[in-house]
Amino acid sequence: MNTATQTCVEELRGWLQDRLSTTTSVREHHGRDTTFHPVMPPDAVAFPHTVEEVQRIVAACAKHRVPVIPYGTGTSCEGHIAALRGGVSVDTSGLNRIRAIRAADMDATVEAGVTRKTLNAHLHGTGLQFPIDPGADASIGGMVSTRASGTNAVRYGTMRENVMSLEVVLPNGELIQTGTRARKSSAGYDLTRLFVGAEGTLGIVTAATVRLHPLPEYVAAASCAFGSLREAVNTVIETLQCGVQIGRVELLDAVQIDAVNRYSRLGMQVAPTLFFEFHGSEPEVAHQVAMVQEIAASHGASDFAWAERPEDRTRLWQARHDIWWANKGLRPGAEGLPTDVCVPISELADQVEAAQQDVAAHNLIAPMCGHVGDGNFHLCFMVNPLDVDEMGRAKGVYTRMIRRALAVGGTCTGEHGIGHGKVEFLKEEAGAAFQVMQALRYALDPLGIMNPGKVTGFPV
Amino acid sequence: MNTATQTCVEELRGWLQDRLSTTTSVREHHGRDTTFHPVMPPDAVAFPHTVEEVQRIVAACAKHRVPVIPYGTGTSCEGHIAALRGGVSVDTSGLNRIRAIRAADMDATVEAGVTRKTLNAHLHGTGLQFPIDPGADASIGGMVSTRASGTNAVRYGTMRENVMSLEVVLPNGELIQTGTRARKSSAGYDLTRLFVGAEGTLGIVTAATVRLHPLPEYVAAASCAFGSLREAVNTVIETLQCGVQIGRVELLDAVQIDAVNRYSRLGMQVAPTLFFEFHGSEPEVAHQVAMVQEIAASHGASDFAWAERPEDRTRLWQARHDIWWANKGLRPGAEGLPTDVCVPISELADQVEAAQQDVAAHNLIAPMCGHVGDGNFHLCFMVNPLDVDEMGRAKGVYTRMIRRALAVGGTCTGEHGIGHGKVEFLKEEAGAAFQVMQALRYALDPLGIMNPGKVTGFPV
Repeated sequence: MNTATQTCVEELRGWLQDRLSTTTSVREHHGRDTTFHPVMPPDAVAFPHTVEEVQRIVAACAKHRVPVIPYGTGTSCEGHIAALRGGVSVDTSGLNRIRAIRAADMDATVEAGVTRKTLNAHLHGTGLQFPIDPGADASIGGMVSTRASGTNAVRYGTMRENVMSLEVVLPNGELIQTGTRARKSSAGYDLTRLFVGAEGTLGIVTAATVRLHPLPEYVAAASCAFGSLREAVNTVIETLQCGVQIGRVELLDAVQIDAVNRYSRLGMQVAPTLFFEFHGSEPEVAHQVAMVQEIAASHGASDFAWAERPEDRTRLWQARHDIWWANKGLRPGAEGLPTDVCVPISELADQVEAAQQDVAAHNLIAPMCGHVGDGNFHLCFMVNPLDVDEMGRAKGVYTRMIRRALAVGGTCTGEHGIGHGKVEFLKEEAGAAFQVMQALRYALDPLGIMNPGKVTGFPV
Repeated sequence: MNTATQTCVEELRGWLQDRLSTTTSVREHHGRDTTFHPVMPPDAVAFPHTVEEVQRIVAACAKHRVPVIPYGTGTSCEGHIAALRGGVSVDTSGLNRIRAIRAADMDATVEAGVTRKTLNAHLHGTGLQFPIDPGADASIGGMVSTRASGTNAVRYGTMRENVMSLEVVLPNGELIQTGTRARKSSAGYDLTRLFVGAEGTLGIVTAATVRLHPLPEYVAAASCAFGSLREAVNTVIETLQCGVQIGRVELLDAVQIDAVNRYSRLGMQVAPTLFFEFHGSEPEVAHQVAMVQEIAASHGASDFAWAERPEDRTRLWQARHDIWWANKGLRPGAEGLPTDVCVPISELADQVEAAQQDVAAHNLIAPMCGHVGDGNFHLCFMVNPLDVDEMGRAKGVYTRMIRRALAVGGTCTGEHGIGHGKVEFLKEEAGAAFQVMQALRYALDPLGIMNPGKVTGFPV
């Protein structure tokens, strides 16, 4: 800890008292995400309970030029919470108030530390839901900051479409509100969208007003296997072109199905498989299922199964739900190195096949699952981070995947974010726009204290 | 014309030749929008045909510090294209190429001067549409820049949700691409959304990649009258809460219905009236119509009419389509002074009623129509701009409407934008966030040449 940080931490401890921790276990916990990224602990962790306390912490860090790293639940994937140059981690879990749920307006205002499951629990009985589901029970502030999405995005959009307004503590400690509760607005620059996905580099999100959606009147699930990835993808393309509003559609490759079969003792056909969920009124869902079955059959689908009762739907989707643990089971002790490219859907089959060939050629294990309606897919390399040769091979495949995606108009990350793991790829993707991002960042954080090294990297 | 402008204009004329105009009629045409705002002509109008020409024009203006005012079709409402301090209007109508339509990916890349109707004409036969409909046949570049929407927004979103990526000439003449063709991305700051709604103050949009949507399999229209505005609004709230995905829903007040009855010789009941459009599959639409009819009946609706055939739908919606001309007919020779607040839908009835009372108390004429699913409504004052007393009364009512909207979490503009007409209201609405907007603008345009005086006003 350098002198400035020491002074800052002592100043903070003076009023935060036991809500400012410098113990090793707390620091290490706050320097670790869910992937292979090495632990980079902050110098101290602050646990504010109010927005005013966050303002005071940031102001103190600004005064001493100490890095500030916002922390939600630590479930991000690209080293977002790593304290690359030390500093103070601001744990937002104490900002846990649900300020308002407005059923008539179908919106809610919650503090940043509220998790999506907590919010949905509070919505019980209103007939409404907050559908964005990145898998982990992430905090709303964290989901805002990584522009999270998940399996529901094809129907409900991502955090980009579902955040109406944010309360943000700026790098100088000032508090702003980025928007209103109006469903649409043409009032000035879209600051809300600027902070959504900014990964805490422009300020700390302390509360969000989000859209809510009606719980679907009726839900059905379906799955079917295909002779090739291309047939599965073409089924989805035709389905979307027909205007069928799928609730979710997930694609698992044969390697992934094999992994799940082993782990969950299922007997699914080892082939590229689509998992659908349909949301709507009963006649609408019946119409959708019939259309999708017809389209899938025209692409040679087999093993078409569908389910309506919740327990049957869960069983049908079990393979999809179990992939994380199934992958762990493929290679006990291995860490997951996730990829996250997103491409125009017409390019998806080519992209996945090229990646699969590259994986095989380099003797790696990397099952694939994709949010195919959005063109977003994840190969998850199961690696030993200490095996330098293997990590080199994995990173080679990983880099080529991204370059291929960029070449066809895709992005290096569909939903995980840049963190410090993908700064160089963002540079390639954005081109001259990268300097625009740097200029905007400098305009809001001239001292460079907010989550340094993430998104646009360190200033040169 | 000052000396710097003269030098700049001569330099531009050197290579643009007859595509640089300084004639009075061309300049006045480019300084006028569709509303009461006074004409503020630029010093010259440039007609570039390529993106490179736009870059060269902007670079010349930057060198001489001459204002640049991007121009689409001149159909905006808040003086966006007024040359408040002279300068060069850049008419984008020559950027008229449709670069690509990609049916499988349901997206298209078009240059800024392509209008929405031209794009839709090119989509003929693909089964796809670009649904955003602000009324006028605006250019895509203009629609991007005002964050336009219209009657379809409740179903398809606004330009915010439908622009995937932009090509932009920055204030220094450099060209950037703000995003990719991926349906979602977490790659860095959302520059696309920053330029959507920036009204040409951060750069000139030269091309846009937009989302396309399937043409609905089936469309039905309906209308019904209510005993009060509140019953109409409550019908819409319940409809949305039930998850009925309305294609459009418009609310006209009794004054507006009366105006249309007179103009179009209709015999509609003079009462608050909802106009619905339903998009979907045939069983889905039938289910939706039945649900809405039941909800509307429970709120005392009468005169429920519905139509399926295109000509019957057009007749049913005629009242809605004719309001512009009907309003002109209410007071021949008058100019329209439109308002555009947008509020949480639960506040809509109170807000409209308060505005109606204020209109009546001040002896003004201002029919109301609203995109009620979004909480956006327009009172259109029919005024004589030369009548100082009347303009004063209209602006008083107008100002109180905005202040009431802001007080309940609404916005001063749902879809028209700030231009120079609403800078002071943006200041009130944004609070401390207004300075953030100024800082962002200064970061990208330190010389202050891009559409000066709009959005955040002139630098102090």
